[in-house]
Amino acid sequence: MTDLERKNERHQARMQRLKEKVDAKINAAAEERGIVIVVTGNGKGKSTSGFGTVARAIGHGLTAAVVQFIKGTWACGERNLLEQHGCQFHVMATGFTWETQNRQADIDAAERVWQGAKKLLQDESIDLVLLDELTYMLSYDYLDLDEVLDAIVNRPINQHVVVTGRGAHKKLLEIADTVSEVQSVKHAFEAGVKAQKGVDW
Amino acid sequence: MTDLERKNERHQARMQRLKEKVDAKINAAAEERGIVIVVTGNGKGKSTSGFGTVARAIGHGLTAAVVQFIKGTWACGERNLLEQHGCQFHVMATGFTWETQNRQADIDAAERVWQGAKKLLQDESIDLVLLDELTYMLSYDYLDLDEVLDAIVNRPINQHVVVTGRGAHKKLLEIADTVSEVQSVKHAFEAGVKAQKGVDW
Repeated sequence: MTDLERKNERHQARMQRLKEKVDAKINAAAEERGIVIVVTGNGKGKSTSGFGTVARAIGHGLTAAVVQFIKGTWACGERNLLEQHGCQFHVMATGFTWETQNRQADIDAAERVWQGAKKLLQDESIDLVLLDELTYMLSYDYLDLDEVLDAIVNRPINQHVVVTGRGAHKKLLEIADTVSEVQSVKHAFEAGVKAQKGVDW
Repeated sequence: MTDLERKNERHQARMQRLKEKVDAKINAAAEERGIVIVVTGNGKGKSTSGFGTVARAIGHGLTAAVVQFIKGTWACGERNLLEQHGCQFHVMATGFTWETQNRQADIDAAERVWQGAKKLLQDESIDLVLLDELTYMLSYDYLDLDEVLDAIVNRPINQHVVVTGRGAHKKLLEIADTVSEVQSVKHAFEAGVKAQKGVDW
């Protein structure tokens, strides 16, 4: 037997063992229901991941809706694309808190958008709701934590919810099924590269 | 002055200082060029983030192409959606390495898909190339590291590249402009929830 044949044989044995493990896990995971996914952390790609999930769901013929807290005064490439496919958008459209500099106006805007979100979280015809940048509304106390948690927990049983934003509240992590934390290792912006259409917004 | 007024005033002062910092950073970041984004780590949402970036780019009228290593035997919601908008797909379509269990067949398939990727990385008409799950091809030694790095570094100056997958090679991180690491905090699958259409694939 040559070295290469031995290498290929070891590879096959290793992959066979891996397959057995993966298959056992797949068989153990039998429950089907709507899940809550939280994408948090300081790195780039949280909203992007949320929108990617929406694109995936819509690509499969599911219905999806997006509620965007904070952002919304910039052009948004995802919105251009997803609205064409029937994805509803509710957008706070105030810009970042350091642009508005007005706490009460921010709270009023957050509350208006949240009313839209609550309706979606009671609507069985919506398969996936993205609550983009919701975490900030909770850390700034713009929305009532218990009311938000209640609405998410009591949504239709097969509805999926994706929440994005830095610093997700501990209680939000508790009710989540899947939590990913995105860490920034490095960022082009910090190296002097401008935020660019198509990749950054 | 009431407590609330004081709170609002402090908020405004804090946000004013934050705005000055943000604006200074935005002014310092003046360079416009294609960037390399690497999304790595063990958490869920790396490919999703890559596909979100593709959706964003296409939503802005940019041209994008997707090269999918490993995956491709499952239905893929993003593909259904993005192909309708002119996004090219090159798919390895062998399934996971633990499904094929055949190292030489995997290498041949990786090499075929890589030839498509190389052409895209020389094509000025493509604004964004997603190299989904490329990292595994390098950690398994299925593709030549130097050849891959060369092709990425020497791409058209305005082309963006997104690379996803666990365990990104150190040299890939070095040539990247933006690196995010997705950590898994918890995952529904581990708690017995089946991978579901629209959120997991």
